[in-house]
Amino acid sequence: MKNRETLLTATEAPYEVITGSVTTPLGFRAGGLHCGLKKTDRNDLGAIVCDVPATAAAVYTTNAFQAAPLVVTRASLAEAGTLRAVIVNSGNANACTGKQGEADAYRMRSGFAEQLGAVPHEVAVASTGVIGEPLKMECVERGMAALPAQLTAEADGAEKFAQAILTTDLVKKEACVAVTVNGKTVTVAGAAKGSGMIHPNMATMLGFVTTDAAIERSALERLLRQTTDVTFNMITVDGDTSTNDMLLAMASGLAGNEPLHEGHPDWAAFAAAFRYICGQLAQAIARDGEGATKLIEVNVTGAATEDAARAIAKSIIGSSLVKSAAFGADANWGRIIAAVGYSGQPVNVDTVDIHIGPIEVLKQSTPVPFDEEAALDYLKGDTVHIKVDLHMGSGEATAWGCDLTYDYVRINAAYRT
Amino acid sequence: MKNRETLLTATEAPYEVITGSVTTPLGFRAGGLHCGLKKTDRNDLGAIVCDVPATAAAVYTTNAFQAAPLVVTRASLAEAGTLRAVIVNSGNANACTGKQGEADAYRMRSGFAEQLGAVPHEVAVASTGVIGEPLKMECVERGMAALPAQLTAEADGAEKFAQAILTTDLVKKEACVAVTVNGKTVTVAGAAKGSGMIHPNMATMLGFVTTDAAIERSALERLLRQTTDVTFNMITVDGDTSTNDMLLAMASGLAGNEPLHEGHPDWAAFAAAFRYICGQLAQAIARDGEGATKLIEVNVTGAATEDAARAIAKSIIGSSLVKSAAFGADANWGRIIAAVGYSGQPVNVDTVDIHIGPIEVLKQSTPVPFDEEAALDYLKGDTVHIKVDLHMGSGEATAWGCDLTYDYVRINAAYRT
Repeated sequence: MKNRETLLTATEAPYEVITGSVTTPLGFRAGGLHCGLKKTDRNDLGAIVCDVPATAAAVYTTNAFQAAPLVVTRASLAEAGTLRAVIVNSGNANACTGKQGEADAYRMRSGFAEQLGAVPHEVAVASTGVIGEPLKMECVERGMAALPAQLTAEADGAEKFAQAILTTDLVKKEACVAVTVNGKTVTVAGAAKGSGMIHPNMATMLGFVTTDAAIERSALERLLRQTTDVTFNMITVDGDTSTNDMLLAMASGLAGNEPLHEGHPDWAAFAAAFRYICGQLAQAIARDGEGATKLIEVNVTGAATEDAARAIAKSIIGSSLVKSAAFGADANWGRIIAAVGYSGQPVNVDTVDIHIGPIEVLKQSTPVPFDEEAALDYLKGDTVHIKVDLHMGSGEATAWGCDLTYDYVRINAAYRT
Repeated sequence: MKNRETLLTATEAPYEVITGSVTTPLGFRAGGLHCGLKKTDRNDLGAIVCDVPATAAAVYTTNAFQAAPLVVTRASLAEAGTLRAVIVNSGNANACTGKQGEADAYRMRSGFAEQLGAVPHEVAVASTGVIGEPLKMECVERGMAALPAQLTAEADGAEKFAQAILTTDLVKKEACVAVTVNGKTVTVAGAAKGSGMIHPNMATMLGFVTTDAAIERSALERLLRQTTDVTFNMITVDGDTSTNDMLLAMASGLAGNEPLHEGHPDWAAFAAAFRYICGQLAQAIARDGEGATKLIEVNVTGAATEDAARAIAKSIIGSSLVKSAAFGADANWGRIIAAVGYSGQPVNVDTVDIHIGPIEVLKQSTPVPFDEEAALDYLKGDTVHIKVDLHMGSGEATAWGCDLTYDYVRINAAYRT
């Protein structure tokens, strides 16, 4: 846990971090089971359902090849903007599977809607796993028939769901906060999976946020988009943007607050709580990147613009050389400044400061002698902070990633087999 | 050598591949020695000199942080456009070393010019190695004093030079061809080093091309730039663009041909020969990428434009997942199409064909069943060809890279130490 305590929990956050899951917000139940898509007996089919139509919004991958479930979810949300459920499978991405894949995704939607007594467009669909293989629909159908009976608001249901969405992930990724809106307690929670093909550009592999807040749909859409830009879109594991990225938010409204929108007096608190959840999930994905032994956080300040800061932070976090050096606990700042230099963004080559954790290694672009032993000791921790100040403007951004390890190569040298 | 024979040697090339090195073209001598910059006793200082002022041109990294030797070489070429020599050290990049680094690079230039009885601006300087550490000038000075005595046009000198420019490279990279211009035999040769921080954007880590052709300087500059775009700028090892990339061409003119330019009757033959040399060196760098066990060649056809084809080819060749799958001999075409999809280029998602070697895996975006054993056997070879046809237009490009292996991680987890 070394270094970890310094991470981003604001000292005076307008929300409280609580123990909870996607079923903590009022109205939500969840579950998961093994239906036969994974070769092991791990869960591979799960769902979150809402007792009432939840105001919903989603963001999707920008990959030109969007998987069939994304087409279906997009169609669902276009209909009424509310959802009763999302059904998710792992073990097969249902991507690049042609007309049959699309028919299968639509069948998942209508099949699960039938089970719930809902109409098809109230169901969203998500998939993750191998690309290009047909979905074993007999397994999915059997699983969907068994799933409703075990849906529950108890922690156990959310746990089974969180397990069901994992692929090469080692740990489940959940977060929950409480925030006060109109004097009422509103909860916001999320679950996500990551691990490889992670370089989101709209949303991450799969993320689900639930809340019992009442919120106007357009405000939820804007909030989701803005938050994604500074959380999920700021992580990378391997620079590969998936065909299946989707982040879905569902708001049951059962907390009984007056509907939230940007002019609501408690909007800032709610938005901060929402951002906290997305930030925690995004960091958890980065930390559990395929083969990763540590989280890397890159904070860029003083950039010409915020866009420049983001591009520079992502250039550093995406560098295979920076990632390998972090794995080897090598304070090789030359690779950091090289990544700044090839980011394509404006840089004053004479005014760059770099810190690795508490250690200043470059000041005004001039090397600062530092204690290699202390640097080694710091870099052996499970979180590495890299801070770059360009002294050009007020643009700031933070990105998260992980180290590049033998295990990343091992996992990806034989993923299908 | 499996698969290798299918690589790019044109069947009716207007040049002849010959055994030779950078000193095969008339007028050039070379040498290299160990001066103390590397911890081992491997060569770390080398030079190519020309008996006459050689018409010269160079392209440099686009990294914002350009190393001191690039500043100096640029200044030299701006003066008269001819060079008598290039002095190169490995083991230290002399990058991000501030005013002292620039003074040291200028001192290398003037010091070596003195040794040769040349004026400073007739000398170019190049460096490669660790970023951000001061250059041990006492070693360099001692080496520069000893170097002139061992410069030779014999193969031995070029061999010592080729060794002196290597860092983590395992093999030296050389190529030589003969081409007829005005009925006279002209030779073109090159030497290069690669191995990590390889994602050139103007030139590669270090490349040197010599020729005894007479050529107009502006024609040489244009040819160098155009050739770089389809050779060195189409390779990647790790996506990291170095601070020290430089490709330098020197033409002695001693072959006695009428000066070459785009209107010269033998221009096409000479340009093809020049491109062959650059292509061979670029591929050699990709094949000898840090930790690599094989060369990957990605050929994209049918793209909307040539720029789109290049971007898509580089997106595939840069994918950590594609690279890991190649290492594991896994015909995971889902990762190839994902990389096409996130390239940001126009794609018709219904018309994509993919071949891995001779094996068709995707036709009109629909998976083609294939023999996994045959694919495994093909992928175990030392060269992997990936062919993507988008069926949209006439844009075509080829890129080269290597697999991502345990050894890449091992090498880069502890480069400085």
